[in-house]
Parts: sequence; structure tokens; C-alpha cells
Amino acid sequence: MDKDLILLGHGSGGRLSHQLLSELIIPTLSGIPAEGQNDAAIVTHNGQRFAFTTDSYVVDPIFFPGGNIGSLAVNGTVNDLAMMGARPLYMSVGLILEEGFGRSELAEILATMRQEADVAGIAIITGDTKVVPRGKADRIFINTSGVGILDHELTIGGNCARPGDAVIINGAIGDHGIAVMAQREGLDLQSDIRSDCAALNGLVAEILKEGEAVHVLRDPTRGGVATTIKEIALQSRVGITLREESLPLNGAVKGVCAILGLDPLYVANEGKFLAIIAPQKAEAVLARMRAHPLGRGAAVIGEVTAEKAGRVQMETVVGGMRAVEMLAGEQLPRIC
Amino acid sequence: MDKDLILLGHGSGGRLSHQLLSELIIPTLSGIPAEGQNDAAIVTHNGQRFAFTTDSYVVDPIFFPGGNIGSLAVNGTVNDLAMMGARPLYMSVGLILEEGFGRSELAEILATMRQEADVAGIAIITGDTKVVPRGKADRIFINTSGVGILDHELTIGGNCARPGDAVIINGAIGDHGIAVMAQREGLDLQSDIRSDCAALNGLVAEILKEGEAVHVLRDPTRGGVATTIKEIALQSRVGITLREESLPLNGAVKGVCAILGLDPLYVANEGKFLAIIAPQKAEAVLARMRAHPLGRGAAVIGEVTAEKAGRVQMETVVGGMRAVEMLAGEQLPRIC
Repeated sequence: MDKDLILLGHGSGGRLSHQLLSELIIPTLSGIPAEGQNDAAIVTHNGQRFAFTTDSYVVDPIFFPGGNIGSLAVNGTVNDLAMMGARPLYMSVGLILEEGFGRSELAEILATMRQEADVAGIAIITGDTKVVPRGKADRIFINTSGVGILDHELTIGGNCARPGDAVIINGAIGDHGIAVMAQREGLDLQSDIRSDCAALNGLVAEILKEGEAVHVLRDPTRGGVATTIKEIALQSRVGITLREESLPLNGAVKGVCAILGLDPLYVANEGKFLAIIAPQKAEAVLARMRAHPLGRGAAVIGEVTAEKAGRVQMETVVGGMRAVEMLAGEQLPRIC
Repeated sequence: MDKDLILLGHGSGGRLSHQLLSELIIPTLSGIPAEGQNDAAIVTHNGQRFAFTTDSYVVDPIFFPGGNIGSLAVNGTVNDLAMMGARPLYMSVGLILEEGFGRSELAEILATMRQEADVAGIAIITGDTKVVPRGKADRIFINTSGVGILDHELTIGGNCARPGDAVIINGAIGDHGIAVMAQREGLDLQSDIRSDCAALNGLVAEILKEGEAVHVLRDPTRGGVATTIKEIALQSRVGITLREESLPLNGAVKGVCAILGLDPLYVANEGKFLAIIAPQKAEAVLARMRAHPLGRGAAVIGEVTAEKAGRVQMETVVGGMRAVEMLAGEQLPRIC
């Protein structure tokens, strides 16, 4: 590996991404310390807090079971706002198109975006379109940026997990990554694995009714649950123990992962989030999740500990303990 | 031309861009009518108006005399906010990197972005980085989105030009487009043509002191002065007459344009803007411009008329009149 070149792994969301961000990008552009990094930035105007976030989408293939690059682009940014406890309000759309891209495919992607934006209740109000010559981009890349408003006084963030907290997820992991990979590789799956891509702001609004018990909300996209949990352990300076047997996992995803040697803990999700909740409210949050269409498969998957700050371990089904680290390298490039 | 495919001209900022936007992109995504299109969207919260805008940058080459893709990305979005009369506050940065891109080039671009953001007084507070395999993008694409605040009650927009208004520009046209093109084509120019890339918010703040006399502010980037003026004539349903002899133009740019058969009226600018001003305040605005480092070459270049709504004509130096239309096709691809 040439240390002077950008590698695919620098876009993985895992360890290399974190290195590039913490060594170069964040210190140069903003100087915000790593502990303060969240899915969106929070700013205050006249006592009103707003959230602001951006993401670019380069998924390959652009159409896959359960969605397309457009649904990802809308829901990904809606979810980044929701993870800060913000109500999504406004979205921008920046398109980079390759010369020769099909207008009908573009139309289908845009229609999906509008539909998903309407479902999430966010308004697309500004945009930009660039076209580059053939071979200088891959069909379509989309950037969406989003602005939301915080209707509460809660402090939610990756640095707010406390010992004793429960770690809850709203359903099965790995569906998005495996659906995209299977489509890309032309795998002929007997089972129907679809991306879980969805807007989570409605479900988050339900959970926010539990108020100060809500400490962390974060969606495990690139890098998967393992990387996201490790980030939280580092930011909050706590230990986190996961129980493998509690992890919701669809049988088909489990099967594909086993055959291909993938660990579902590192596979991207687009409709899942981790909620780290004060223990006395864990059951209440779980009940709220299960009452919502996007949370029927919710489960408590672990807990926060005071010991071993910054470390994540998993109690395996066979009874051992293994350390969970961030994704190293690149498991599945261009998954979102 | 296959009507079902995206063409380079759809990213030109000219006629084809307008068609794609008005026929497909805007009706699908937002439904905002064409007359309401400006450089940024305006939204109101608790009586406070905010501006929100986005742009992606795909310039080739990424380094050129007078700037690089990073200075463009910051100043372009700052200027889109400034053109709405907004004070730029916050910016997001979305990077799409090609595998194998040089880390030192990235570092230089990011350092430029921070420097330009500091000059403009905008804070970069959120971001995203994706990496795509070699050959799937061209080194680096940057999206910036920006949020600004309106500190005044003025209504400024492309639909606010009125008959009798003066059309003013803050200096010479075409420098950015010719600087980028000369670098790209390896032209060995005897003269030093540099991009005019700059943040215009400081100069705009000066002009806003003239209050309600300020009707339209717009920066003639892709598509050049001609396309921008035509947009304004259509949005405001007015005629506009330009005087060719008043157009500020550096001799070197004029020379290169003559040799290459380019019309400087269609060449992109990145540090210029058109101000359409009530006639009684035109001299005052001109004086404010000329007192500012970015407006020393300011000039009145034309006026708004009641006749011939939606049409733009230019009094040529030889005394004739010619119609000015939007850029047709693509003059210089990937200019920003």
C-alpha cells in the first residue's frame, strides 16, 4: 500500500476512513475534535437548534432489490438528521451524470427520490446538475445535503453512552449490503434479499418520547454494526458488550455471508439504527420500536460497561468473547 | 442527438441544461416553478429567512492559474448564497475520490478550501468522503452545500428586474473559463490569464446598503453573462439591452477568444456578478463596487426595458443590434 495514494478502503467507513478523516480531512477543513463527530452537525440560531448533514452516493449497481441510488440518497440523509434527533425539513440534490446516461433511468431515480422525500416529509428545495464526459464518472453520483430542526432540548450523540445503558437495534442486519452485492455479482439467490433502505425519522420520533433516556442514535451504514459500535465506545469512552445470539439476522443473509466468508456485523444497513438507552427505559423503547413497521424485529443486543473504555467485545454463541474492531480495509466497495 | 441520453450540453448551464431542468428534474423533485429558480432557495423559520444552496464541482484540470477545484467549491457556494442577499454561515463538503488519487493533492485542495472559507467567513461543519475504483471517477469531485441567513427584508431574485434598471457588472468577463481552458489544452499563453475565482459576499454586503434599489444579483458562471442575462429577462418578463463597448474584457482574454473563436459573453466567470439596480442608485452602486478590491473594474453594461419581454439584445461596437440567446450546446465542458 502506497501511503501517498487514496485507497478504496479510505471510503469504507471503517478504520482507514477514520484515519483519513482524523489525520487529514477534519483537521484541515474544520478542526472539530473526533469526539464531537456525529451524523450531522448541530448549530444554534436564536435559541433554535438546527442539524446540517451531507452525503454522496456512488452505489453500484444503481438499481438493486429494495431500492435504487435515489432512495438511498434521500433516506441516507434523512436518517443522518434523524440520528441527531432532528426533524428533517429541507434537502438539496446534487447530480453528477456521465455523458450517455439514460434519461429514462434518470427519470426513474428522480421519481423515487421525490416519493421517498414525500414519505419522509422532507422538501427538496435546491439542486445542481453536472455532466462529465463518458468514462469520467460511472453513470450517476448523487449528493444530498439536509437541514433539520430539533424540537426538543435533549443531547443525543455518539459521546453520550453511559455504563449500564442498553444497546438496541430496530431489526435484522446486513440486508442492504448483501442485496447490493448479490445484484452486482449476479448471484442467483434462491431467497429474496432486499435492501432495508427506509426513512427512520418516524420511528425515531416515537423513541424521542422517552426523553432523556435516549443517549445515542446512530445508523450502522458503511462499516456495519461493528464499526458503528466501536465508534460509539471510543467517543463515549465506555466499553460495550454485544451478545451474538441476540443479533437479529435473516436466515438468507446469514447463509450468503457464510458462503462468501462475510461477517454480517460489518455489512452495511440503510434502514437500521442503534439506540443506546438508559436501562430503566430499555423495555419501553423496545416496545415502541416493535409497535412500528420499521421496528418489528427490534432487539436488545448488548450493554454499555464502565470497564475497558473504547473496547467492544462480543459474547459468541459458543460462549467465548471476541474483540470487535472497526472494519479493516474494504469489504464491499460502493455499497452506498 | 439521441433524445434519450444525457449529453455534455445538459451540464453546460445553457439551453440544454434549462430544458433538462424544466422538463424533468425540477418538476419531478420539487415542483418549484421556473420563474422562482434562483441561485439558492429561501425558507423562513420563526420570521427569520435562511438561504440553502448546493453545487457539485467537476472542473478539469483540478489545478489552474488562480485557483483549484477547492477554491471553486467554496467560493461557488458562498456566491450562490450571496446572490440571494444572504450572509454565508455554514458549509458542507462531500468528496468523491478516485482510487489512486494523490493524498498530497487532496491535502492541498483541502487547505485551499479552509483558507477560502476563512476569507469568506463561512464555517465548514459537516462532510462526507466516498472512494470509487480507478476509472470510475476523474480524480476528485466536490459537492458543497451552504446555509446562510438574510439580515434584511429585501426581495432579491431573478424575477425582480424592472424597466429602467441599470445592469452592472463588477469587472472583466471570461477570465475563469479561459484560464481553465488554457491550462487544460496546454496553451502556451504569453500573457498571464488567471481565474477570477473569489468570494463575493463582502462586496455584496456593501451593495446591500443601497437597500430596495437592489433588484437582482446573479453570478454568470456556466453559460456566461449571456445565459445569465437571458435567464433574468425571462424570469422578470422584461427586455434587456447590453452595450458591447461597455463590457469589461481583459485584452489577453479577448485575444484568446478571438483566436479560438469563443465568444467571451458565453465564457464562465467565478468572481463576477450582475447587479440589476434601480436607476437612481446605479451610480451609488457603481461607486461602492469600485471602492472594493473585487469591483475595481465595475461598469454599467446595459439596461432593462419594458419592450420585448424575455428578449436580450446587444448594441454592437459597430452600431448594430444582435439578439443574445442562452448558450446552445457545450462551449467548454467541465469548467467548474
